[in-house]
Amino acid sequence: MNALDFTHDPAAQSWVLSANAADSDFPLQNLPYARARKAGSQQDWRVVVAIGDQALDLALAATQGKWSSAIQVLLDPLARGDLNSLMAQPAASRRSLRQALFEALREGSAQQTRLQSALVAQSDLEFALPARVGDYTDFYAGIHHAVAVGKLFRPDNPLLPNYKWVPIGYHGRASSLVVSGTPVRRPWGQRKGPQDETPQFLPSQRLDHELELGLWVAQGNALGHPIPIQQAEEHLFGLSLLNDWSARDIQPWEYQPLGPFLAKNFGTTLSPWIVTLEALAPFRCPQERAAEDPQPLPYLKSTGNEAAGGIDLHLEVWLHTAAQRAAGRPAVRVAFSNMRHMYWTAAQLLTHHASNGCNMQPGDLLGTGTLSGPTPEQAGSLLELTFGGKQLIDLGDGETRTFLQDGDELSLRAYAERPGARRIGLGPCTGLIQPALPAI
Amino acid sequence: MNALDFTHDPAAQSWVLSANAADSDFPLQNLPYARARKAGSQQDWRVVVAIGDQALDLALAATQGKWSSAIQVLLDPLARGDLNSLMAQPAASRRSLRQALFEALREGSAQQTRLQSALVAQSDLEFALPARVGDYTDFYAGIHHAVAVGKLFRPDNPLLPNYKWVPIGYHGRASSLVVSGTPVRRPWGQRKGPQDETPQFLPSQRLDHELELGLWVAQGNALGHPIPIQQAEEHLFGLSLLNDWSARDIQPWEYQPLGPFLAKNFGTTLSPWIVTLEALAPFRCPQERAAEDPQPLPYLKSTGNEAAGGIDLHLEVWLHTAAQRAAGRPAVRVAFSNMRHMYWTAAQLLTHHASNGCNMQPGDLLGTGTLSGPTPEQAGSLLELTFGGKQLIDLGDGETRTFLQDGDELSLRAYAERPGARRIGLGPCTGLIQPALPAI
Repeated sequence: MNALDFTHDPAAQSWVLSANAADSDFPLQNLPYARARKAGSQQDWRVVVAIGDQALDLALAATQGKWSSAIQVLLDPLARGDLNSLMAQPAASRRSLRQALFEALREGSAQQTRLQSALVAQSDLEFALPARVGDYTDFYAGIHHAVAVGKLFRPDNPLLPNYKWVPIGYHGRASSLVVSGTPVRRPWGQRKGPQDETPQFLPSQRLDHELELGLWVAQGNALGHPIPIQQAEEHLFGLSLLNDWSARDIQPWEYQPLGPFLAKNFGTTLSPWIVTLEALAPFRCPQERAAEDPQPLPYLKSTGNEAAGGIDLHLEVWLHTAAQRAAGRPAVRVAFSNMRHMYWTAAQLLTHHASNGCNMQPGDLLGTGTLSGPTPEQAGSLLELTFGGKQLIDLGDGETRTFLQDGDELSLRAYAERPGARRIGLGPCTGLIQPALPAI
Repeated sequence: MNALDFTHDPAAQSWVLSANAADSDFPLQNLPYARARKAGSQQDWRVVVAIGDQALDLALAATQGKWSSAIQVLLDPLARGDLNSLMAQPAASRRSLRQALFEALREGSAQQTRLQSALVAQSDLEFALPARVGDYTDFYAGIHHAVAVGKLFRPDNPLLPNYKWVPIGYHGRASSLVVSGTPVRRPWGQRKGPQDETPQFLPSQRLDHELELGLWVAQGNALGHPIPIQQAEEHLFGLSLLNDWSARDIQPWEYQPLGPFLAKNFGTTLSPWIVTLEALAPFRCPQERAAEDPQPLPYLKSTGNEAAGGIDLHLEVWLHTAAQRAAGRPAVRVAFSNMRHMYWTAAQLLTHHASNGCNMQPGDLLGTGTLSGPTPEQAGSLLELTFGGKQLIDLGDGETRTFLQDGDELSLRAYAERPGARRIGLGPCTGLIQPALPAI
């Protein structure tokens, strides 16, 4: 999946002129997939491909464009809104579709006149989740997050003994995955503070975000049959931003002994676009390990991993409060980080997950866990940024935060850039906090 | 859901004579649903209803029978194998279908000649999972199991402080749910014993069963909107037996801090039939609470719960080893228990799950957790029966077990009986342990 080809040529331009702007998230070299329709319409969802500020509607492109029969077969289910079908294809087929779309949208393409009317402005679209998610798993691969959170409870020994051996993960809730832009309702829940004699059931007062990426599974494996580490990346389709909203006051009271549950499953927001691993090929980087870290067990070890198991993807967290919006003031960046800080690679997460024979299916989603960086301002959650709610964040103009307030709009952003490659972005992952409902 | 009507008349008989045998799991008063087709065929799956040793094929019954238009509308999706559609109906509609099927299969029904040819012998069928499971959650509502397992680690203080306040649960893996009869492959996994300097990746040597029931969700709730406890049972469809296979050597090394993961998700077996809550109405019993137990918080409290929140359902665990089968010796019952030992009612589990706004969908599955009884021989897992693998179970003829060996066939069984009601059963939930695959 790391191989570079003509679709990574940084000089290539599109006949869709907005894609050629230097700061576009979606140049010709990106070509991410989403599911969308005209906003407010009752159209069936169809798969679209981002190009500049436009989207190529594959329902129209499949009939108006001129495609080889091999590509036409891949396009037909996409025209019906089924991205899972493409995920189920072998990596070579997925790559061939990327190449065909690249050529069709490239400056000078003979397809321009045929596809011009298959373009829709992204601003005219509404989005669904990009795929049907069978199962959603959330990992804990951000080691700086694990250390920072561990320090709040065990200052001298923040990392548990299994962390550097086992890619820690747990199952999340698929039904409450929502697409960017969907409001998030403040949850009620049980909590019990150290001073409380009995627990109380109240709206969460410690509502938090978590800066994560979601890895989309491509081809699956049969139940009982693992995925060898050397083949793992062929089974991965791409990634989206993921905000694992968390109620920090519900979590400590409920999570022993079986892990987080209602503190997490009231909503998880995904950015609409899936940026493929092929598009990210120019931004691969070494897996980040310290010299004293143990070697992975053999089933998690591959020679490619050390050199290019990581992805150099810049991440940001932006907060826009109701007061800021009312006053016309801009959002504030509260943190930045990078995907390269994952202790385990995407391939290791997938191989570990299937190592007991657990069956993956196309469209399954693997959250990376919160991807904090090594310094305090690189923290991917308010829990870390405020040292457990003890230190205020100054937002300027007299506003501060520990945890999220009603009306706050939280956005995750991500882009990759390096000399010699065309910058690509993921598009935002946004949610607005709504007040809790009245008591039931 | 507790109301009795003519479908609970213990004297009612069916024109399907095998249903009238006193020891049948499937008399006229039961009428559970499954998805099946002729074994070895390539038929589409259709919904079937058990009656004695036969199954009424609803694909045939929908066209051959004579039904009111209200019932015909309910039958048509079932004929296409879609049981989720019935789950999504209001409780009154589900009850009306039960009544229509009862009348059609009752002795003297005018439908007998029309439906005779819609019967298939159950022994000629193969089964699928009874519904499409969106999300699978596993609870921990068996308090005797929680105490027994807690004692292995904390003899003086086995129950954690949250147990009697929070219905503890975690998300399971939906993709690896399999129907009774599907072999279960022994998983590989990381483990690290107290003497080991580093972990090892090996086939599990402590493979165990867990005796559970699976509660099927009927109508769902919108994201953000809880399910009040008074309405919870209307949102429950019925139950199946559930075996939550567990690798006891993988679990302790991986489960901190986010809960069980690969120790559980390599396979979970369900019995094919869903026995509805309506069928279980004669067997409701008080919720089992000790006088000193705290009152549930108001959102989990309903006046009906104390009197009839429980279900008096007898449970058994049977083991049939390869040696026993080869010698023609019968299976051995290794434990028995009862569903009434749940600390939380089915309604409380569902209401708690949705109390933060988490959205349930028709066909979602809630495992109860291991339903051990109060005495050692009522333990729903080998972990408990062998006191953590320290005490052998004697199977007779020189065979013993601590944990499951390759070739062992483990079956869960369940039935309800009481004076004045017709006995009903769930049908078996069986899995045969296959040896681990070679190393990857």
